Amino acid sequence: MTLLAREVLHASLQDPVLESIGFLNEIMGRYPDALSFAPGAPHPAPYEELDTARYLDRFTAHAAAAGLGPDRAARLLYEYGPARGLINGIVADALRRDQGIDADPDALVITVGAQEAMFLVLRALIASPEDLLAVSDPCFVGITSAASLLGAGVVPVPEDADGLDVDALAGACRAARRAGRRIRACYVAPDYANPGGTRMAAGRRPRLLELAEREDFLVLEDNAYGFTAPPGAELPALKALDGGRRVVHIGTFAKVCFPGARVGYVVADQSVSTAGAAAVPLAAELARLKTAVTVNTSPVCQALIAGMLLEHGGSLAELARARSVLYRRNLAHLLRALDREGAAGLPEGVEWNRPGGGFFVRMRLPVPADAGLLEASAAGYGVLWTPMAPFHPGGGGRRTLRLSCSYLEPGEIDEGVRRLGAFLREHARPRAGAGAGTGGAP
Amino acid sequence: MTLLAREVLHASLQDPVLESIGFLNEIMGRYPDALSFAPGAPHPAPYEELDTARYLDRFTAHAAAAGLGPDRAARLLYEYGPARGLINGIVADALRRDQGIDADPDALVITVGAQEAMFLVLRALIASPEDLLAVSDPCFVGITSAASLLGAGVVPVPEDADGLDVDALAGACRAARRAGRRIRACYVAPDYANPGGTRMAAGRRPRLLELAEREDFLVLEDNAYGFTAPPGAELPALKALDGGRRVVHIGTFAKVCFPGARVGYVVADQSVSTAGAAAVPLAAELARLKTAVTVNTSPVCQALIAGMLLEHGGSLAELARARSVLYRRNLAHLLRALDREGAAGLPEGVEWNRPGGGFFVRMRLPVPADAGLLEASAAGYGVLWTPMAPFHPGGGGRRTLRLSCSYLEPGEIDEGVRRLGAFLREHARPRAGAGAGTGGAP
Repeated sequence: MTLLAREVLHASLQDPVLESIGFLNEIMGRYPDALSFAPGAPHPAPYEELDTARYLDRFTAHAAAAGLGPDRAARLLYEYGPARGLINGIVADALRRDQGIDADPDALVITVGAQEAMFLVLRALIASPEDLLAVSDPCFVGITSAASLLGAGVVPVPEDADGLDVDALAGACRAARRAGRRIRACYVAPDYANPGGTRMAAGRRPRLLELAEREDFLVLEDNAYGFTAPPGAELPALKALDGGRRVVHIGTFAKVCFPGARVGYVVADQSVSTAGAAAVPLAAELARLKTAVTVNTSPVCQALIAGMLLEHGGSLAELARARSVLYRRNLAHLLRALDREGAAGLPEGVEWNRPGGGFFVRMRLPVPADAGLLEASAAGYGVLWTPMAPFHPGGGGRRTLRLSCSYLEPGEIDEGVRRLGAFLREHARPRAGAGAGTGGAP
Repeated sequence: MTLLAREVLHASLQDPVLESIGFLNEIMGRYPDALSFAPGAPHPAPYEELDTARYLDRFTAHAAAAGLGPDRAARLLYEYGPARGLINGIVADALRRDQGIDADPDALVITVGAQEAMFLVLRALIASPEDLLAVSDPCFVGITSAASLLGAGVVPVPEDADGLDVDALAGACRAARRAGRRIRACYVAPDYANPGGTRMAAGRRPRLLELAEREDFLVLEDNAYGFTAPPGAELPALKALDGGRRVVHIGTFAKVCFPGARVGYVVADQSVSTAGAAAVPLAAELARLKTAVTVNTSPVCQALIAGMLLEHGGSLAELARARSVLYRRNLAHLLRALDREGAAGLPEGVEWNRPGGGFFVRMRLPVPADAGLLEASAAGYGVLWTPMAPFHPGGGGRRTLRLSCSYLEPGEIDEGVRRLGAFLREHARPRAGAGAGTGGAP
């Protein structure tokens, strides 16, 4: 019977980030009846209105009318298809209309969720051991785990209340150069980031693009939560400000359509030149890499998403409208519930931020928010949350936890926060000799 | 405007294998009316009987009856889901029933096609620059391109009429060891391989497993074409002979269901041990890697495949029966058409093999079967085929081409072979001074 020691497998399998995902899944499995603020999953209510047959028909009719004819259009769903995708034009139209992102369909690749987009972009850009990826700290684990799979060095860049610290990033670029290395890209989710909830201030956005130009790196913009901005308070995506084509824009339909489609996209309109050949968009290179990872994104899944878009006038914003109301309601409800618990008395040093959108609230504790504490919370109080340390490639966040409210009902949020309050009053009292100020900003 | 030189992107983007896929797509795009023996795509006839709504309902009813209840089962399609997959039990049952492969559902991962399965297995096993992948030569480009993306060294192992040369593989293992390196895995498609059409003889199969045990590597078995074996002439899969758990078995539903689902699977029942923790199947490690590549395989796509299986008594063989008749008909038709052209007179040195199954025939020419020759074939004769050199990581195959007959109608095969014959009579005459015997076996 073949036995492999984990040490002889790829090092990413010993990465604490991948470990932490496994641990969270495992503890949710052991406490199925706990109220869980852990997963950042979309709310299931909109699933009830989904009509897969109608979306498929809608896309097929669209493709037939666009010149393919009905037989050929019907077959599209079942065949392979181009690695770059089938619905690029429909997505490009939506990005232009809704976000002011002016991208040619050839500059898009339709991917298996945003995750594959991140993976492909990193694979293209990380060409040698000297190449580095800068990331906001804290940071979505999807990008750091992809970097881990590719053995790419990650440089954490702190963020403050206005988002990524651009001066710190400039310093990191200089430090990398002095060490004979180079920051090739910087990952940032400028709108209500997972896990931090931070939004990059309007004035800081052009500064990041200027630095990217000056230091010759690309900005990887993850736009998953922008749609949750309050009406009238939307800020332009980095890609909409990107005259110099410094931004690779990554999006997902998991939140505004449904995660089970596993459809995302990447806008990569940078030019790639080869001696003796015409320049091609970076997207074409990403599509070539995709043939070696997943070949192409399921045409059935692409058709479901395109059909949904077409049913909503081709508009992502239109699709997102009802959903964003739901998420803002939940976030406001969570913050009110936390305020009530705070008024009822929580241990000194328990603090949380107040994001204006997104799925997440960060809470700082005066004690380590680790696996042991989570186990105590689950076993004794029936409430789950996510330890933040794995989101901090720079090593911080040990006393911070993330609360997600995206998929809960208001009553569940109330009950979950009551349980959390009882748990915190018992288990998050400052310990003698442990200063409350050493855990980093919440 | 950002301009990137291809040289600063990952080296795999300069790999001739990825280039060749791009070239084939490009030439097919330029000659849309040519008869094409190039792509190994499934035949579209079975698509007309597909009923996506019925398959989704069938799976949902199955999941509801299995204990989830109707509401929870309906939501499965739309949510994320476990990285390892949703339909592992249904696939494990089919493998046991149809192929004598006895695998626990926990030892399976449902992947985005066989391609992602290959990619994940390589990522797990290629842990250092010393780790090598052995492949049959010629070899499916999906595995060599995945190795290229990971920077993995590839060792070509020749095959003869009975399949992979096990003695040559033993020699390659020794040579690697002497060089301070190690063959971690050997990729082989034992049944009617793409592109060679070769089938591994029954007597050779256990010998490969014995060598894997002795030299401590894993066999990556790709089972895409086994279902095309003539009834009664099936040979056991390597995994069905695998008492020592040396085989990682990779399969796809692209051929027996439809490619647009992008669903494949991997059986990886090897034990992975970590100090201080219970051993887990290798499949669990692959699932962890998958979270960093595609998160999970679309539940909608998984449900389509599971529903199709359930509609056919849970049997892959049952699903494959009508399709295998179609493919054997096409292959026999192609071989008869080639024989007719041969009888009408083809240049000396034009030879082809006679596979008993699969999608492909290999043809050797007395002249280089390169991009220039393909261009002449497409432009002057309206017939396309695939140059074999990219399938030969060892550098052979320059005078060999691949003919795929899988998705054509008999009349198209006849007309295509007539065009091919006319082309060969004009362009494949042995050149003065060029020996016909130097191009390797067809």
